[in-house]
Amino acid sequence: MSEPPELPNALERFSVNQMTVRQLSLPELVDACRELGVAGVGLWREPVRAYGVEAAAKLVRDAGLTVTTLCRGGFLTATDPAERAAALAGNRRAVDEAATLGTDVLVLVCGGLPAGSRDLHGARERIADALAELGPYAERHGVRLAVEPLHPMFAADRCVVSTLAQALDLAERFPARQVGVAVDTYHVWWDDRAPDQIARAGAAGRIHAFQLADWTTPLPEGALEGRGQLGDGAIDLRAWRARVEAAGYTGPIEVELFNSALWARDGREVLAETVRRFTEHAV
Amino acid sequence: MSEPPELPNALERFSVNQMTVRQLSLPELVDACRELGVAGVGLWREPVRAYGVEAAAKLVRDAGLTVTTLCRGGFLTATDPAERAAALAGNRRAVDEAATLGTDVLVLVCGGLPAGSRDLHGARERIADALAELGPYAERHGVRLAVEPLHPMFAADRCVVSTLAQALDLAERFPARQVGVAVDTYHVWWDDRAPDQIARAGAAGRIHAFQLADWTTPLPEGALEGRGQLGDGAIDLRAWRARVEAAGYTGPIEVELFNSALWARDGREVLAETVRRFTEHAV
Repeated sequence: MSEPPELPNALERFSVNQMTVRQLSLPELVDACRELGVAGVGLWREPVRAYGVEAAAKLVRDAGLTVTTLCRGGFLTATDPAERAAALAGNRRAVDEAATLGTDVLVLVCGGLPAGSRDLHGARERIADALAELGPYAERHGVRLAVEPLHPMFAADRCVVSTLAQALDLAERFPARQVGVAVDTYHVWWDDRAPDQIARAGAAGRIHAFQLADWTTPLPEGALEGRGQLGDGAIDLRAWRARVEAAGYTGPIEVELFNSALWARDGREVLAETVRRFTEHAV
Repeated sequence: MSEPPELPNALERFSVNQMTVRQLSLPELVDACRELGVAGVGLWREPVRAYGVEAAAKLVRDAGLTVTTLCRGGFLTATDPAERAAALAGNRRAVDEAATLGTDVLVLVCGGLPAGSRDLHGARERIADALAELGPYAERHGVRLAVEPLHPMFAADRCVVSTLAQALDLAERFPARQVGVAVDTYHVWWDDRAPDQIARAGAAGRIHAFQLADWTTPLPEGALEGRGQLGDGAIDLRAWRARVEAAGYTGPIEVELFNSALWARDGREVLAETVRRFTEHAV
């Protein structure tokens, strides 16, 4: 399961999000990347902070790895003033951490409805208000915010931004150097408007991140930990990559799988499999 | 739990879909409707066929109940010619059953991707081809087809028609007396384009059914049996009813809950609760 990939050049753009192999410690992840010829990693705030942000930055820098994104800021929909202030402060820290880690992209999962609320529009407007505060702060630190539309099944509890069109409607209120979007195949694959919205995003220089995961069924309880390994599901990954590239995107392609079955396996084996699947289904 | 509703006139438009209380036999359902002042029922093919279509028709007719819809035809995306012919034949039988039951609406759940396919567009076109055959057949039997967009989380395995806009794009290839749409709050609530699409559907006389369910989290495994009781979730039901009525819809309002927790309870109690919730949250 650990043979090197057949097409090493095909990995130039490949990045593995840390959550795909969250069973690996950060040093184990760095070692596995070196062994498999993986040059990019997307990092996740919680394990990075547990390891120490400065120490993590040194570890990946010394290994020659590129940090393609930091995931994730966001959760900007609270109505309570204290909660809202805490969220903004937390996002400024996330910007600082991204800068320390040497990535210029902070992915935002923008938040669901506050408890008891049924007001999707109001929640979306509060996100815009928060971006107006965070965008300039991020720019001063050399970081771009990537609003990630999440699949509509997460609209109530995780992210009221459900489509690429909505994400761009939000992003376009701000300069592209402050706010763009993250395109994740898992979240947009069902949407017949998404191809046009990718073109719209690309033309405006607003594709700040591109992530891959496949769609498999049945969904697990809670829907969160069922993202499919590349090639196992319903998504034509190669077609989505072609759309994003036709829109002018030349950045990293990050594989981000939340999958409890993958997490139960040996992490290096999963990373090797992910590299192989990437070359088979997305190159 | 079985007190009569406070606003009996508020129930004029109310209909209960049989699946909401599937623990009740058809005679039990009819009795419970009579007891609670419910005048409309949406029926489901499998239990109706098990009871006998003619016998079911007589039972509800003798009780003075209106059959608001028959659920469900559809599953029109197969590529295999034999499967496709069987699906079309099954849908013609569903039209016949609707006519026998005295309803003029057959709700269609149009089908997911065939095994191994990643071609959403092709699947949607096969639905259009099937509607071209079924629409005239339905019209001759006094039945209108209602294409129901299902939540995008069902795009792979149940229905490649994920938005009201897509459903209308399909329906508008045919006369409104043949093909319209079913609006179900559970499936469209997250979609900021849905209000405009409801107006579009209403203006064309294509709202053939309107169903209510609430959105609750976490989703259960498989996502199918977690539709929330009215008032328990994130959907502003009254606002959606107002939109549908502003679009000119004056037909029945059917409550359709697939919910294993409700199915585990006493069916009459669940129906009484549903009536009460309807008056509290949708009138």
